[in-house]
Amino acid sequence: MSRSGVPRRGLLTAALAAGAFTAGAIATTGCTTASRNTIGDRSELLARELLGVDENGDDLTLAYLKVLIDTGLPKTGTPKKVIVVGAGPAGLSAANLLAEAGQRVIVLEANGNRTGGRVKTLRGVFTDRALYAEAGAMRLSSAHPLVLALADKLGLRRRPFLNSDVLPGNGIPASAPPVSYRSFTGEEWSNGPKVRYVPPAAAGRSLIKVNGLTFTRSGYAANPSSVHAGFGSALTRSGHSVLDAALRQVAVRADLSIEQQVEGWASVLRAHENQSLRSYLMEQGWPRADIEAIGTLENLTSRMQHSVVFPLADHALIPSDATYWELAGGMASLTDALTRKLGSAILMGRRMTRVEQHEHGVRVWTTAESGGEGSDGRPSDPVECFDADYAIVAIPLSAARFCAFDPPLSYEKRRAIIEFHHDAATKVLLEFRNRFWEEGPAGFRGGSCITDSPNRSLYFPSHVEDSDGGVVLAAYTLSDDAMRWDSLTDGERIDFALAGMRELFGARVDTEFTGVGISQSWLRARYALGEAAMPTPGQLHEHHGATRSVEGRVHFAGDHTSLDTAWIEGALESGVRAALEVQRR
Amino acid sequence: MSRSGVPRRGLLTAALAAGAFTAGAIATTGCTTASRNTIGDRSELLARELLGVDENGDDLTLAYLKVLIDTGLPKTGTPKKVIVVGAGPAGLSAANLLAEAGQRVIVLEANGNRTGGRVKTLRGVFTDRALYAEAGAMRLSSAHPLVLALADKLGLRRRPFLNSDVLPGNGIPASAPPVSYRSFTGEEWSNGPKVRYVPPAAAGRSLIKVNGLTFTRSGYAANPSSVHAGFGSALTRSGHSVLDAALRQVAVRADLSIEQQVEGWASVLRAHENQSLRSYLMEQGWPRADIEAIGTLENLTSRMQHSVVFPLADHALIPSDATYWELAGGMASLTDALTRKLGSAILMGRRMTRVEQHEHGVRVWTTAESGGEGSDGRPSDPVECFDADYAIVAIPLSAARFCAFDPPLSYEKRRAIIEFHHDAATKVLLEFRNRFWEEGPAGFRGGSCITDSPNRSLYFPSHVEDSDGGVVLAAYTLSDDAMRWDSLTDGERIDFALAGMRELFGARVDTEFTGVGISQSWLRARYALGEAAMPTPGQLHEHHGATRSVEGRVHFAGDHTSLDTAWIEGALESGVRAALEVQRR
Repeated sequence: MSRSGVPRRGLLTAALAAGAFTAGAIATTGCTTASRNTIGDRSELLARELLGVDENGDDLTLAYLKVLIDTGLPKTGTPKKVIVVGAGPAGLSAANLLAEAGQRVIVLEANGNRTGGRVKTLRGVFTDRALYAEAGAMRLSSAHPLVLALADKLGLRRRPFLNSDVLPGNGIPASAPPVSYRSFTGEEWSNGPKVRYVPPAAAGRSLIKVNGLTFTRSGYAANPSSVHAGFGSALTRSGHSVLDAALRQVAVRADLSIEQQVEGWASVLRAHENQSLRSYLMEQGWPRADIEAIGTLENLTSRMQHSVVFPLADHALIPSDATYWELAGGMASLTDALTRKLGSAILMGRRMTRVEQHEHGVRVWTTAESGGEGSDGRPSDPVECFDADYAIVAIPLSAARFCAFDPPLSYEKRRAIIEFHHDAATKVLLEFRNRFWEEGPAGFRGGSCITDSPNRSLYFPSHVEDSDGGVVLAAYTLSDDAMRWDSLTDGERIDFALAGMRELFGARVDTEFTGVGISQSWLRARYALGEAAMPTPGQLHEHHGATRSVEGRVHFAGDHTSLDTAWIEGALESGVRAALEVQRR
Repeated sequence: MSRSGVPRRGLLTAALAAGAFTAGAIATTGCTTASRNTIGDRSELLARELLGVDENGDDLTLAYLKVLIDTGLPKTGTPKKVIVVGAGPAGLSAANLLAEAGQRVIVLEANGNRTGGRVKTLRGVFTDRALYAEAGAMRLSSAHPLVLALADKLGLRRRPFLNSDVLPGNGIPASAPPVSYRSFTGEEWSNGPKVRYVPPAAAGRSLIKVNGLTFTRSGYAANPSSVHAGFGSALTRSGHSVLDAALRQVAVRADLSIEQQVEGWASVLRAHENQSLRSYLMEQGWPRADIEAIGTLENLTSRMQHSVVFPLADHALIPSDATYWELAGGMASLTDALTRKLGSAILMGRRMTRVEQHEHGVRVWTTAESGGEGSDGRPSDPVECFDADYAIVAIPLSAARFCAFDPPLSYEKRRAIIEFHHDAATKVLLEFRNRFWEEGPAGFRGGSCITDSPNRSLYFPSHVEDSDGGVVLAAYTLSDDAMRWDSLTDGERIDFALAGMRELFGARVDTEFTGVGISQSWLRARYALGEAAMPTPGQLHEHHGATRSVEGRVHFAGDHTSLDTAWIEGALESGVRAALEVQRR
């Protein structure tokens, strides 16, 4: 890796030293070519961010954990007025940190009836009111300490999310061990005594149905070739392990120093910057049949055309023995708790339409689309404006495409808003009277099935309390697979999802179905405009830096400004970063 | 290029010799690796199809022209029962050819109220009933003789589609010269005396607004650098010519023999099989700024990630001096005429749900979604089935994803249905009381504007009869650009499209807007499920052959089975091919 004097200012470090962004940062409409980083430089910036290390070798995850959980922001002297746009986990966490530090904060949320963004628990919509289900984010990873520790701090009950199915009689702990994070600096952070957690053993009874044949997961594990043969693939090991090996071989070894890891990752990012997952696997010699087999079995078919950088990072940064967690009462209990703490500072039903900046402040225009009441009980004026010293825009890039900015945003920010690919993801959730999949000698609890039918992947509830029934995520589709469903009406999605379940479980799905099904297309969701920002080849280098660059008095947050895109962790990380930026101005 | 004995059976030739497909063609669920062509082979097959040349060196376009326009199919002895599924131009042309040859044909159409598929003229929806507009296909190219000659044969009035704007006072012919097609064999086909057609001179008054600055097209042509500078690009020639040069340099010279052209094209396809347009341009040394500039100005930004093969073929096969045409009364006058000829053979409101095949026939199951009357005047049974000797499935691949096939389709066909990328395209059409853009010293008629606002491209009517008003295609977006709009409600699309026009033409758009706007998302269209099948890198080689392969007694048509995807020409070509296949069984 070159050491030829390329500036080593990390993205994160730069974000912390927010002063660096402000001078002359109100954009003109022209493009300043000179300000563009070279690709090598960008690769290093991305590597530092991936590893969470600033230019001094400090651990930013650790620093953010301390801010979010232990200390909060440094208290302010003279309060500033701050507008936070968007009440997803990014906006909510930033707003709470700033409010607790003494700033005068308001949050503007477009939805009239809920906060949470793409954290969306469906409650009170099923025939059995004890049931709920996740239309959005559904699990937390042990590789993500910010969200786990925040849930614990808020007093929420965490319990295992069964990524793999278990025997129904298996005793599963209803709570979770404390969070502990070991930094590359050697420092440890934890919110309780260290406990060795042993996840429940997988039963392997959930199903795989591809090319007309049905297998159990344990059957597949015992004889992968029998499944792969249907694709014409001669692979003899399981899809997961083969993919893992392909992606992990470029990962950096943990026994290296953090600066060596940064250099290693920078080389990896540079080498694969413009590759798709498909072209990466082809370069590794994978025949087409293997790509089709593993794409199908790992639910990656429709993401083969995307940048390989994300799967590379995912496989390297989330260890294969990671555990997964959910929140009792639904994932929205996290965003609900953050919302409650803000009280009347959150104004619902205000969609941002325009941002104006002048020398001393920022003005945000909104429109009310619901035509209902404001949070103050009076009929809301459809058009309002709000003035503040600073703003944090914590909405998706795709939503910003339909907002006006005066003065215009910088060239780089505009390109990111225009070009960054936002992916489709669609879920169809069906309610059943009894959890028939848990019954009998083939019964299983939790976990997922995979199929090459339109449903693609199905997830079963890990925990159900106070009900014989359960809600199944009967079709969880991504990208092109999801776009097929997005063309259908809501009613058809229910019918087709049920048909796909019938292929796996027979006619009992019809007698057990309560008639209540809910579909959630994130692409068609008005304020989300997509599941998440997912780079196509080259886009991470081209646009990532601009997603989070400060524009005058306007800061930007959201999972798309982090490298943990589509995870709550990324949203929280961005919320802490943006709050720090504003606090230090 | 290798001459090492690769089988030279062309895809088209194979299709004509349909017997070759039938033996054992009813699929099993397994994958027959041995049946896969090598990539070299596939490149040659694609090259032959692109050039329309069969293995004997005959011209298939010429052959199809004669069948479609002059002779029809050879008359049948014993009539066969044929079901055609889908009444777009592919299904309608196949059904007409087969019916005229004496077969007993029925056409099953999912829509309850119209035929035409992605040919969709909006009529009777604007305040001025003299106005209509195209929600789907809007122009015909002089490079496409099948559709031009068919329109003429049906007695439809063709007139110029103004791809470039002209002076409003410019005399534009209200009719079109005869069609003439010169084959590479030297043979000429025409439907009238040869006329030299001189298209009207471009005025260059339509607008380009990018990076906050507005230019006329003639201003851009005179000084491209001033526009490119906003992107940080140093390009000094116009985007169109630069892109043309980049794509044409690999095109095959027309002075070569047709077999030399096939070889040349096969090499080109082989070399670029796995490349995106972006990676192709990068390989040619284009800096990022140039890609952003030309992507924006040529409305290709969101297609940079797609296969380069399509733009390569487009630029080579549609000459730069191609002329464009529209049909008086709207493009649907073509599909309406084909529909009228079939009379009661078309059954509306029947969506195919299932295809069963047995030794002696095929059974197609349908459901009525409208719950209305059948074409026979009686209430339609929601579930019906139809028996026949053969079927032609002329619906998009994405629609077939939600149909059951018993026995299952072949592995290759299933992969094509699952994987082939279908693109988004969205149009927002606004009605104005007066054609204010045609007025004053800057006025222009027809043509298009381009912008980096969400609207991206705007098209103005070439001809308006009996009205002072006009309908503007105020936002024509593709792929990711279109997906942003697909997240909005219909009402918001109108508002945002109007806002984008206001940026170009000022407040007059508001006073002239009649309040009637219509948006058409092809991704969200229930029976289209996308604008068209658009390959991502590698998909053309992987899946194209399977789009048209015969499965037992079931044949396949539609523009996606041709290489003129998204053009009516491709649909007609596929209709003739499928009709020939069935006729020869």
